[in-house]
Amino acid sequence: MPKISQKGLFMPQSPIRKLVPFAERAKNNGVKVIHLNIGQPDIKTPQIALDAVKNNTIEVLEYSRTEGSETYRNKIAKYYEKNDIMVDASDIIVTTGGSEALSFTIGSIADTGDEIIIPEPFYANYNGFATAMGVKVVPVVSNIDTNFALPPIEEFEKLVTPRTKAILICNPGNPTGYLYSKEEIQKLAAIVKKHDLFLVADEVYREFTYDGREHYSILREPGLESHAIIVDSVSKRYSMCGARIGCLVSKNQEVVKTALKFAQARLSPPTYAQIASEAALETPQSYFDEVKEEYVARRDLLIEELGKIEGIKIGRPQGAFYCIVELPLADADDFAQWLLEDFRVNNETVMVAPAAGFYATEGLGKNQVRIAYVLDKESLKRAVNILKEALKSYIG
Amino acid sequence: MPKISQKGLFMPQSPIRKLVPFAERAKNNGVKVIHLNIGQPDIKTPQIALDAVKNNTIEVLEYSRTEGSETYRNKIAKYYEKNDIMVDASDIIVTTGGSEALSFTIGSIADTGDEIIIPEPFYANYNGFATAMGVKVVPVVSNIDTNFALPPIEEFEKLVTPRTKAILICNPGNPTGYLYSKEEIQKLAAIVKKHDLFLVADEVYREFTYDGREHYSILREPGLESHAIIVDSVSKRYSMCGARIGCLVSKNQEVVKTALKFAQARLSPPTYAQIASEAALETPQSYFDEVKEEYVARRDLLIEELGKIEGIKIGRPQGAFYCIVELPLADADDFAQWLLEDFRVNNETVMVAPAAGFYATEGLGKNQVRIAYVLDKESLKRAVNILKEALKSYIG
Repeated sequence: MPKISQKGLFMPQSPIRKLVPFAERAKNNGVKVIHLNIGQPDIKTPQIALDAVKNNTIEVLEYSRTEGSETYRNKIAKYYEKNDIMVDASDIIVTTGGSEALSFTIGSIADTGDEIIIPEPFYANYNGFATAMGVKVVPVVSNIDTNFALPPIEEFEKLVTPRTKAILICNPGNPTGYLYSKEEIQKLAAIVKKHDLFLVADEVYREFTYDGREHYSILREPGLESHAIIVDSVSKRYSMCGARIGCLVSKNQEVVKTALKFAQARLSPPTYAQIASEAALETPQSYFDEVKEEYVARRDLLIEELGKIEGIKIGRPQGAFYCIVELPLADADDFAQWLLEDFRVNNETVMVAPAAGFYATEGLGKNQVRIAYVLDKESLKRAVNILKEALKSYIG
Repeated sequence: MPKISQKGLFMPQSPIRKLVPFAERAKNNGVKVIHLNIGQPDIKTPQIALDAVKNNTIEVLEYSRTEGSETYRNKIAKYYEKNDIMVDASDIIVTTGGSEALSFTIGSIADTGDEIIIPEPFYANYNGFATAMGVKVVPVVSNIDTNFALPPIEEFEKLVTPRTKAILICNPGNPTGYLYSKEEIQKLAAIVKKHDLFLVADEVYREFTYDGREHYSILREPGLESHAIIVDSVSKRYSMCGARIGCLVSKNQEVVKTALKFAQARLSPPTYAQIASEAALETPQSYFDEVKEEYVARRDLLIEELGKIEGIKIGRPQGAFYCIVELPLADADDFAQWLLEDFRVNNETVMVAPAAGFYATEGLGKNQVRIAYVLDKESLKRAVNILKEALKSYIG
């Protein structure tokens, strides 16, 4: 039998993949599982986007343009302008989700054996795309005690080698909920300029910032034009995860030209989803105001309820809709499985994402879980209560 | 300024990319350009697929399952069964186009520096995906004088090294239109078994076979279960190129399990497109009969008209909707550009795809072009006449 690749063997799996069969078994046994583990919002997709697809007049479902249609890219540029990010259509490639934007970015800037520095914990699939492209993720540790703020810049410097091609951040962060300040972005700008690296920012949660904090995009930082690459997506912004539309944005035309070659190989992004995404840009501000208000209320409730549990630490999120919680136990993986297998309150249990999968450094995050607050407040409250009771029972 | 990757530098560009600005200039000058260069059919998408999307009732556009929904994969399995390919849902991963199926396949079976043997001329993007994954394409030459039949198996054997991981074919072929016979598939089966390689078949043109010839899928060949991987797509079958839905099919569960890891990193295939694709499986047979009849008529007309041009060779297509034509000149690239820049008949000209881009061996195909017969017969006839007059003028 022919052998699969080493790459395939070492492709990291989703942090929750191992738990899925246990969740399914619980459900099959009539148990209600509250999912704190997923980033799939329950928020309704803007009607204007749904309607655009329902009212489409396509007769031949043709390839679209490789880089996305001119009109859509022009509208995206206007969206960025409203967010103080000055780019035009030629700086944008429409991609199949933020995933593909990231994949094109890594391919365009790094060769086999090259290195990308990423503050950990980080979105687990960064490691997947890097592995698929033969690129090494070099983690720099951020800490729950500072809410996962940017690690000291010396920690980055220590890790720069001749193979280092980029620093990659997620801002606001999944899984941390941390929002980098302007000063932190400027520190990163200084180091990438000093060492001639790219700065890649996954800004898919741009709109989700709380407590009056403002998002500072890497493309707002003057002088960073040759270095900055933004990875973006409509998935969370408009609760359109199933569309699979994102984009790559850079003022570095060599990067855009190179990424376009990768894009050409896959022909074009999905047509229906582009129709939805273009229409979604007309979503009224009231939609975002309501969504943000809802997320803030959920976060506040979550933090308040978690605060009642003794012995845990919480990374207080300032953006996105995740937070990392450190538990008073050794193996969150085992705890998460036990929750699904053995623990119920009124025939309900919760599913959490063990956080070790968000770290590249072996051994880190083993006592942490990621909680996504994409559920209604009532469910969140019940879920935290179940966690509280479970911890008592598991530890005791 | 930070440097882009070597990979990015060497990513092959589409064979027609260089010509696009010339075509645009001609159009801007009011010239009608007949496109013989593209694989975008003019055939209407089945109404049942279009309607399914228009009538969708989605309120939250959620991620779908990474591997595609259970119901859709079950229906795909039934489609294969009708085509004498015995697989079930667990052998199938739904992908974002055939492109992604190919990309997952290469990642799952080959590491950086590994080799995949492909009969040339081949679909240019094979080289793109291989380059992106750091894998080397090793071409084996097929010839217009045999309509691009399978090269002698000794030619494959000569190229097998310890780094060889697979043989990749496109059947029926783009850009050749050649349909491999059962005997040819069996020869390939013997060699992959002997050397413990994978056999990857891009079968996206499965339905497009002419002159009573039957398609023989690699998954119909007994004993090939561990070796065979099919790359498939709805793009051409239902004239749904813009959907971006395909699939990877293998009875080798290790391959499926590994490809699934690559699939997980990009979360899910596009939801709307899956709705269209699932509905498209209900397309009545009459649709295919009509489409096939139309393509046969176009091919016959094309071949007949091309036959009137002196000094050219034609690879007679038995499937798909392409053919390679060898011209009595040295540089088809230059000829194609000249057609767009300088030659008109009644203010019309044609755009062809220079074939050198479909060869990996430097220097091959320079006097060949690929013609796609995805246009109505009237346009095809005018196009061939323009080619005929152009050749006289260009050579003379």
